[in-house]
Amino acid sequence: MKELILNLIEQGKYADVREKIVHMNVVDIAQLFEELDHQKLIIVFRILPKEIASGVFSYIPNELQKFIIEYITDKEIKNILDELFFDDTIDFLEEMPSNIVKKVIKNTDEETRKLINQFLNYPEDSAGSIMTIEFVDLKKEMSVRQAIQHIKETGVDKETINTCYVIDNKRKLEGVISIRKLILSEDSIILKDIMERDVVYINTYDDQEKIASLFKKYDFLSMPVVDQECRLVGIVTIDDIIDIIDQENTEDFQKMAAIQPSEKEYLKTSSLVLAKHRIIWLLILMISATITGRIIRKYDNVLQSVLVLTSFIPMLMDTGGNAGSQSSALIIRGLALGDINLKDVLKVLWKEIKVGFLVGLVLSSVNFIRLFCFEKTELLISVTVTITLFFTVLFAKVVGGILPIMAKKLRIDPAIMASPLITTIVDAVVLIIYFSIATWLLGI
Amino acid sequence: MKELILNLIEQGKYADVREKIVHMNVVDIAQLFEELDHQKLIIVFRILPKEIASGVFSYIPNELQKFIIEYITDKEIKNILDELFFDDTIDFLEEMPSNIVKKVIKNTDEETRKLINQFLNYPEDSAGSIMTIEFVDLKKEMSVRQAIQHIKETGVDKETINTCYVIDNKRKLEGVISIRKLILSEDSIILKDIMERDVVYINTYDDQEKIASLFKKYDFLSMPVVDQECRLVGIVTIDDIIDIIDQENTEDFQKMAAIQPSEKEYLKTSSLVLAKHRIIWLLILMISATITGRIIRKYDNVLQSVLVLTSFIPMLMDTGGNAGSQSSALIIRGLALGDINLKDVLKVLWKEIKVGFLVGLVLSSVNFIRLFCFEKTELLISVTVTITLFFTVLFAKVVGGILPIMAKKLRIDPAIMASPLITTIVDAVVLIIYFSIATWLLGI
Repeated sequence: MKELILNLIEQGKYADVREKIVHMNVVDIAQLFEELDHQKLIIVFRILPKEIASGVFSYIPNELQKFIIEYITDKEIKNILDELFFDDTIDFLEEMPSNIVKKVIKNTDEETRKLINQFLNYPEDSAGSIMTIEFVDLKKEMSVRQAIQHIKETGVDKETINTCYVIDNKRKLEGVISIRKLILSEDSIILKDIMERDVVYINTYDDQEKIASLFKKYDFLSMPVVDQECRLVGIVTIDDIIDIIDQENTEDFQKMAAIQPSEKEYLKTSSLVLAKHRIIWLLILMISATITGRIIRKYDNVLQSVLVLTSFIPMLMDTGGNAGSQSSALIIRGLALGDINLKDVLKVLWKEIKVGFLVGLVLSSVNFIRLFCFEKTELLISVTVTITLFFTVLFAKVVGGILPIMAKKLRIDPAIMASPLITTIVDAVVLIIYFSIATWLLGI
Repeated sequence: MKELILNLIEQGKYADVREKIVHMNVVDIAQLFEELDHQKLIIVFRILPKEIASGVFSYIPNELQKFIIEYITDKEIKNILDELFFDDTIDFLEEMPSNIVKKVIKNTDEETRKLINQFLNYPEDSAGSIMTIEFVDLKKEMSVRQAIQHIKETGVDKETINTCYVIDNKRKLEGVISIRKLILSEDSIILKDIMERDVVYINTYDDQEKIASLFKKYDFLSMPVVDQECRLVGIVTIDDIIDIIDQENTEDFQKMAAIQPSEKEYLKTSSLVLAKHRIIWLLILMISATITGRIIRKYDNVLQSVLVLTSFIPMLMDTGGNAGSQSSALIIRGLALGDINLKDVLKVLWKEIKVGFLVGLVLSSVNFIRLFCFEKTELLISVTVTITLFFTVLFAKVVGGILPIMAKKLRIDPAIMASPLITTIVDAVVLIIYFSIATWLLGI
């Protein structure tokens, strides 16, 4: 299909293109657009019916949106804006430079302009910035027949009609009712007798992470957003939440790898920006790692006497780091999903002690057999390494399990307490354990 | 509210409990159940109206489901099953021991029994295992009025009516139509004139990861599932997809921290199982880390001459590991989200070379200033450490960027190529670079 259309475009058969393309899903058309050169893209965009054009517009990358807006006439901009859902308009304006925003805003009426400015002022990642204003509002005195009639009259401009919201004359939220309930109820029933009153709602300033967790908890398709006076001002829909879940997860992956989080795709980010996002944590961690250097220098008499001890340092450090980041990864994820709470700190501590004991025992036994039996390492040195390994694993597990929870308690993002930072902490302690045991056992 | 109800239960005022509880969201009732002792739980469960009881049942943890099924009568089991959506039945049965499954199945009719067995046989994580059979099917010859009448008659048993599916007499999928379109269209219009024919569907054996990415791409609320003969056999709904997205992300977090993935919550997993999931990778990585030991022993003449070189090993290794895992985390995530593809390997390589160059330059300059100017380290030693650091970062970035893509090419899960494995590889190379430069510069 795609090849066929690309061919038709190549041959300039735009009437045929239009006929084929209008039956495609707008997401697929958007994907097709990314493969066109700019001149052809404008031609194809212009032959689309305006409701399809605006749908496609909301799915193409920001650069193409910018290019199209720069190129088309004010009249055409107005057509797109008329069809675009309000949250998609805001999403797109948030990513545009100010000249484009101005060009767009001058094509809207006074009221829309006010609304756009208000929405652009909501904090990033707040309910206000992701909600849409195109929802169905009903009155509780309406009958089911009246409600459905109201939906028939206004529904075409709404982002969803699947859930409808019941408000009073001051726009205060009083209940919700699903289209399913409406369809399955008798025409004469009055909404107030069948609407749900126990409505879960969010505030315009609530953070998107909180919103996502409510969606997950209640399996909602949309949620009402109210302002400080409990007036219904918008709704958030599930499709935006899915993007947010991915985005929050990506942020956690980045933080856990000691990168400053960024929403932008890797391939679309310049090397300079990528480098900038990575360098700060690397610097911090590099400087902290010099503590381990100090510890080694402090014990250089031990190393001087038994140089072979040096060769076990990497293995001890790596195993400690890995053991610690296993624990921290599980705890950070558990905290993010709400499976683990601050009050579980003692449970986690006790679990990690048990796990650390078991894992430490197995690893150090295998290590002892390898060192003493296979590599014929001296007994006392084998024992030193083995005991160190056991305590390393135990310590790493406990630190990896507890630090993320402590961070959360101190209102620091737990994801910061991931692999790299845990590794740095564990490294220093491992060396102190190692040299202490060596001094004591080898009598240096 | 919750305290109030817990109090009423404590006082045995079950009539009041019932009156309050039926107005609550089933998710909140399920949460309340987790705080009750088993005896009270059964009493409260039994006073719930059956449609609420089954809703609550689908949201409580597996242990409580098991307990309830063991306790209640066959008649009560039948009541729950009648109300439970089919995908929730399957989800629950999949987690139950065989005696419970038997007890449940014997309370179903012949046809349901067959269906349950068929569904339990679909591969885990396939569309078949997560789909539900309660969807609205329409015929293309129906008018809008007939379609809505059909929905009114059958909709109460359907998991969703928001999207309806048009099938022919052989149950082959011919189109989809949303309830929105039906409501907003004239009563007399025939479905075949307004249904969407370009239907995106999935096969019963498709993997849930693929399904999730289609949902994300098209912003669907549900998707049709067809069998080998293109017959519509079920639908997958967005609420299940959100759980799957979380689950896939959790798996990636676990793999990237060198843990065997598990779906079970941390606090609900025994220490023995946790230890088992962590030990294999720790063993593999510990054994591989002995290679670094060999390298150090090979160069022990270098260390013997200039013992202070030892003290920089941890810093070099840590920085290399961190630099590498930054890159691998970004690439693994990009591959998972589909932002990066196999064909981008050269782009990634080039980007990581540039980033590695920049980051390496900054880090090694800071390091040189610190060593030579502040810590008064000997010039040649400072230079050795600085040059090693530069190449370490560059190498780590390239390896971290490329290995996940190569893994994917070899059909190995890229998440395996995360932090721990990259660290182990980078460590060995760092040491070789370090000692080679030291030998050459310091003339040992």
